[in-house]
Amino acid sequence: MQELSSLPLKAEQIKTDTDSLKYYGKDWTTYFDIKASAIVFPESTEDVVNIVKWARANKIALVPSGGRTGLSGAACALNGEVVVSFEKMHRILSFNETDSTVQIEPGVITESLQEFARSKNLYYPVDFAARGSSQLGGNIATNAGGIKVVRYGLTRDWVVGLEVVTGSGEVLNLNNGLIKNATGLDLRHLFVGSEGILGFITQATIKLAPKPPELKVLVFALDQLSSVMKVYSEFKNRCALQAYEMFSEKALKHVLHSTGLPRPLETVADFYVVCEVECASEKAEENIMSVFEGCLENGWLLDGVISQSEVQAKTFWRYREDISEALSVHSPYKNDVAVAISKVPDFIVDLDLVLSQAYPNWEVVWFGHIGDGNLHINILRPEGMTKEQFVAECRKVDEMVFKAVQKQAGSISAEHGVGVTKRSFLTYTRSPEEIEIMKGIKKVFDPDNIMNPGKVI
Amino acid sequence: MQELSSLPLKAEQIKTDTDSLKYYGKDWTTYFDIKASAIVFPESTEDVVNIVKWARANKIALVPSGGRTGLSGAACALNGEVVVSFEKMHRILSFNETDSTVQIEPGVITESLQEFARSKNLYYPVDFAARGSSQLGGNIATNAGGIKVVRYGLTRDWVVGLEVVTGSGEVLNLNNGLIKNATGLDLRHLFVGSEGILGFITQATIKLAPKPPELKVLVFALDQLSSVMKVYSEFKNRCALQAYEMFSEKALKHVLHSTGLPRPLETVADFYVVCEVECASEKAEENIMSVFEGCLENGWLLDGVISQSEVQAKTFWRYREDISEALSVHSPYKNDVAVAISKVPDFIVDLDLVLSQAYPNWEVVWFGHIGDGNLHINILRPEGMTKEQFVAECRKVDEMVFKAVQKQAGSISAEHGVGVTKRSFLTYTRSPEEIEIMKGIKKVFDPDNIMNPGKVI
Repeated sequence: MQELSSLPLKAEQIKTDTDSLKYYGKDWTTYFDIKASAIVFPESTEDVVNIVKWARANKIALVPSGGRTGLSGAACALNGEVVVSFEKMHRILSFNETDSTVQIEPGVITESLQEFARSKNLYYPVDFAARGSSQLGGNIATNAGGIKVVRYGLTRDWVVGLEVVTGSGEVLNLNNGLIKNATGLDLRHLFVGSEGILGFITQATIKLAPKPPELKVLVFALDQLSSVMKVYSEFKNRCALQAYEMFSEKALKHVLHSTGLPRPLETVADFYVVCEVECASEKAEENIMSVFEGCLENGWLLDGVISQSEVQAKTFWRYREDISEALSVHSPYKNDVAVAISKVPDFIVDLDLVLSQAYPNWEVVWFGHIGDGNLHINILRPEGMTKEQFVAECRKVDEMVFKAVQKQAGSISAEHGVGVTKRSFLTYTRSPEEIEIMKGIKKVFDPDNIMNPGKVI
Repeated sequence: MQELSSLPLKAEQIKTDTDSLKYYGKDWTTYFDIKASAIVFPESTEDVVNIVKWARANKIALVPSGGRTGLSGAACALNGEVVVSFEKMHRILSFNETDSTVQIEPGVITESLQEFARSKNLYYPVDFAARGSSQLGGNIATNAGGIKVVRYGLTRDWVVGLEVVTGSGEVLNLNNGLIKNATGLDLRHLFVGSEGILGFITQATIKLAPKPPELKVLVFALDQLSSVMKVYSEFKNRCALQAYEMFSEKALKHVLHSTGLPRPLETVADFYVVCEVECASEKAEENIMSVFEGCLENGWLLDGVISQSEVQAKTFWRYREDISEALSVHSPYKNDVAVAISKVPDFIVDLDLVLSQAYPNWEVVWFGHIGDGNLHINILRPEGMTKEQFVAECRKVDEMVFKAVQKQAGSISAEHGVGVTKRSFLTYTRSPEEIEIMKGIKKVFDPDNIMNPGKVI
């Protein structure tokens, strides 16, 4: 790529070797044909501004890239784009004890921020399985959710300031870390979840939470979806609930097989829940026990157990957190959808029926965050079917899934984003008018359409 | 106004008498010349769509109007606009127990929603002095804050869905009450705090919080701003803090004079704090007492008292909540600014110095939400000065105030919005580039500039 010679970066900030193009040109999706032209590594906001100006002058498309743990292809270079990796912008810049805020570069790894918070006796509560490699810039650009949303909300709720470089090369300082700021349209919230179509996130100010008290983890066995919901309501209304994750017996079997863990409970049931509650005092513990026993007496729970140590709590979490890894050998086709919590049972019943009729021999594994209505649907590749055949069939399934989502006014992408994979299905969640408006807004920030073109809209 | 005859509304939905034009044409600001052409009262989203289409066809500007408790003139008709009042759209449409959400029309009064939540054993936590007449539509359009922000955030944090009618007459259903929804730009967050420049809010889905445990209210006397901040940190880090409000001895004196209440504490000091903490158990109460005593021992507190009953708690709140009313006889000139919490002491010292040098004989009364960095500055009209002279002088003060705000990267309007009063000062908080982008976004939603023109940008 000839134009690279005019890019004002040091030689080591530009890579064009085949290995780098492949490595940095993609995310965790596996079925795209990657075609990156170059990878550039800015070290400062100034570098990013220069890259944008160069791209505008040369009409070159840019793809922002973080930890590349995305599942929708938003960070994939598919048409000769230049990938802008934030790997070298990974500093924690400052910490403000009074404000409980930390100013970071976008390349900071989620787990590093969590550890930094702990070192200050605080807590960064956005947490999910990819914590060890996902970067904050990417988390912000996809409004990452995860397992603690029921108690702490999404990434959006922790971003109090952003520095961005727009697609026209302007540096904007959005909200400056303020809590209250009623001075017109809040552009910060447009960038959260924008998947790189408006500009680059070059700095963020993140609020940290107070450290939570001791946490108890409970595992339940239940025979009906309606019970899963009733128990959720009880714990949510009567305890300080941090997480409430459901999975099926099918999911558990895969975890047991893959990890060698013993069953969490003697009782075998259709559904299981891992639930985490704050336990600040003896009285709180008594309360948890009384809610638990009430659910048993009402017949909503078949069986259950409460963690007696931190080690045991960690093990209980593995039954939920190890599902994705346990399934990975079966090349699952993933969907990540959300409906209002109250609509979860109807939705699951509807969709299970449709899928089992259309594909009676397929294994469909459900798990998800009941506490926020987010369900992960994993279809396992039947033995003897090639990957290509399987993906082709799954695309047909997508339409069934999304029709069921639309019926419940849900979201076709709860936390993975739209990227490339959900782009042609966006109308199932957003109206044509909304999509036109999004295009109009993109044009305001990115008049030459250099920012992640072909993604989202 | 001749064009009114073609508006597809019933006769009783249109008012043009002088009293109505005056009454509905303004908010709580007092120094504008009101020039409304008509007031219209939609009863449905369809009515709103028809009004917008009519306005576009006839090139008539519209002003959205809620409870008219605003303090920035955003709901004032100053140039012959037609005011769209949501007074008749005040129904609570549905309640979902599982989701803890309530679907409302924009004309619902804040206090009605709070009472509705209580009737369901839940809690709507956005709370401020105008709760008895402010409407939810207006709260959303200004992202209302108030006294519980330190614990519960702003209005933005409770809006899970919006139905809006854009300036081009399109109905958008934004987010559908979902918790997780990563499907492109979140237009809902653009409408929160948009002050009517993009379109009308015609319906909202609001999340309700669990009912809090018993609350204890404490009143403190302190002699230094640095102590106000230290005590804040102690309570924030070690208790479940709901509110932390500071006011000066000057403010207290006005309240005592106006209400006839006794002093809250024997000790007379430069600063006072009203602080509210959750007290869920005996252990929590012991903890509150131990934090309190620690602050006394460290010399940060000169004196303090903790509420022993709900009645006493309510009285303690009056020392803070009655300030505005107590000052009203002095026609105060109000500013409402915010800086990061950590910058509050420097900011107050800076500004106090500037003001006392420029206006040595003026009485300046400070109070505010320390827990979120939001300060209300009230300058009282000196005796013998006319209202006109006073306002003219205060406009000069504005510049000093806003320069001090800018020095600390703060906000020139923490919760009152921009409207008309802060419009020409917007650059003190938002960059020229941001303002251009806001104008571009407005054009996407409102191509004919019929939505609240002349406001905000």
